[in-house]
Amino acid sequence: MHNWVECNDNIEDIVISSRIRLARNIKATPFPNIISNEEGRNLVTSIEDAFFSSDSMKENYNCVHLWEMDKVSNISFLEKHLISKKLIENSNKSAFISDKDETVSIMINEEDHIRLQCISSGGDLKDIWSYCEKLDDYLEEKMEYAFDEKLGYLTACPTNLGTGLRASVMMHLPALTFNNEMSGVLNALTQVGMTIRGLYGEGSGAYSNLYQISNQLTLGINEKDILSNLKAVVNQLITQEHLSREQTLKKYNYEIEDKIYRSLGILRYAVTIDIKECLKLLSNVRMGVEMGIIKDVSKGVLNDILVNTQPATLNKKFDTKLAERELNLKRAQYIREKLR
Amino acid sequence: MHNWVECNDNIEDIVISSRIRLARNIKATPFPNIISNEEGRNLVTSIEDAFFSSDSMKENYNCVHLWEMDKVSNISFLEKHLISKKLIENSNKSAFISDKDETVSIMINEEDHIRLQCISSGGDLKDIWSYCEKLDDYLEEKMEYAFDEKLGYLTACPTNLGTGLRASVMMHLPALTFNNEMSGVLNALTQVGMTIRGLYGEGSGAYSNLYQISNQLTLGINEKDILSNLKAVVNQLITQEHLSREQTLKKYNYEIEDKIYRSLGILRYAVTIDIKECLKLLSNVRMGVEMGIIKDVSKGVLNDILVNTQPATLNKKFDTKLAERELNLKRAQYIREKLR
Repeated sequence: MHNWVECNDNIEDIVISSRIRLARNIKATPFPNIISNEEGRNLVTSIEDAFFSSDSMKENYNCVHLWEMDKVSNISFLEKHLISKKLIENSNKSAFISDKDETVSIMINEEDHIRLQCISSGGDLKDIWSYCEKLDDYLEEKMEYAFDEKLGYLTACPTNLGTGLRASVMMHLPALTFNNEMSGVLNALTQVGMTIRGLYGEGSGAYSNLYQISNQLTLGINEKDILSNLKAVVNQLITQEHLSREQTLKKYNYEIEDKIYRSLGILRYAVTIDIKECLKLLSNVRMGVEMGIIKDVSKGVLNDILVNTQPATLNKKFDTKLAERELNLKRAQYIREKLR
Repeated sequence: MHNWVECNDNIEDIVISSRIRLARNIKATPFPNIISNEEGRNLVTSIEDAFFSSDSMKENYNCVHLWEMDKVSNISFLEKHLISKKLIENSNKSAFISDKDETVSIMINEEDHIRLQCISSGGDLKDIWSYCEKLDDYLEEKMEYAFDEKLGYLTACPTNLGTGLRASVMMHLPALTFNNEMSGVLNALTQVGMTIRGLYGEGSGAYSNLYQISNQLTLGINEKDILSNLKAVVNQLITQEHLSREQTLKKYNYEIEDKIYRSLGILRYAVTIDIKECLKLLSNVRMGVEMGIIKDVSKGVLNDILVNTQPATLNKKFDTKLAERELNLKRAQYIREKLR
């Protein structure tokens, strides 16, 4: 698995990263929502003890207690896709275990006791699944999961029952967005039990053109089928996006190249820039890189800028709570340095 | 005198170039408007003969007959400020004599028989005047001007009677324009017998922020006073523009720097650009250079781009009549190469 931010540039275009997460709960233990902070923290300790009982885990993983961290740090973990909003909501009793590469994050006391997630750059869901399965097996050896013969893994919310598996693929779909085809895509995906949302939640796709496609169904279907269905949908979307790009290029020709290069020019020269414009320009430049129009910028740098210019991550860099005006200046400065 | 396009960068900021022109007519000869093409061309020949009677003139000057040139070439001379629209209107019988540096242009059969103009970078009107006077004396030795003891030099239009002198200074006034102070400036100038117009005629100032300030009065005032009055007004405007820039910087701070740098970024990266946007961005970058914010771009390069990206001059470069779409591509390409 590769950290999705520091992606190498040989991976297929359009697909940025893939993520699989498993929802698991400890047998005969109330769900996180209804336990006290003390009970929650005790549960964190017992899961930590189980997980770090092996030396190799001690060496490669680290546990962060959200209640010991400041708010900005926690939001920064969210911006890196290491943790979820829900984990922050539960920050008085939640924690997460992650590796140095930040490809694995085991959230404790999110909606479920355990949310095991693996993220990697590119679209190789099989690879990620085998990694995920190994970690899941390791955990299952150490503790008893809540499992029902008929319903499968039991979860706090019935939408996760069964496999407890949610897989999602982050894709860059600027041409489909530009040509207003995303609502059609959403309709089609819903009919095959999939859904789509923006990079940083609802609506944010319109700026970044980054979308997460994921399965809705977790019950009555096995893990392999969930993943191969998702893979099929992703491949279909790759084809659609390529087609849409070709048609757009044919129709607008130099205007597209112009938009791509101007975006790079502005990112390289702006003195102040807000997050929405930043996401929009990054998407244009990313499309230029994916289409081979821009050759001197790597996708890794674009991912780096994408994550590190998010408000909390940027604030964390300067160890202070900056006003939006100052944040926009720091964002532009960070981008200029990265794209030099 | 220095070619205003290839200006050296030590000249004072804000003032780009200065121009003096003298309107002169040959005694007992009808004004250009009412003579036939044949009579006009004969007049061109006789003025040429007189002018090129000296060897040094033969060596340093050249005469262009507008009726022998294509339309694009003639408009390109206009865009370089070598000739006027009126000279092109009379192109069946008009010509101009200019030096290699293109600082002098003696138009023949414009509104008057002779329009002697000298343009130089910077604001040194005295220097230009002494050059202009010398050429005027030289011509007056060779031919008899229409002159009246009471009215001075006789001209086709009464607004040029007397000295026949029109002096103009091209200034870059982005802050006064941005702060909507230009209509106030126009009112004030009118009251002291001066006027102001955009670089390429009425209204164009709003894009380029380049304005020509010139005297309206030519009669009842001697040459020295015309020039010193103009110089005083120009100095006043320099002070006003500086003040306006300081206030704008204080008020908007980073936003101004941002606008300046983004403009440079777009000029360096755009794939297609129209003339209006080009003028606007050039003005922003010029302000950056004048304020010492941008250090790696010279004013000479900005003037070069200003002139060479004008439609006819650009068309002439490619020896063809390009459609606007292609012209915008060529313009962007020219700018990218110049700003590399």
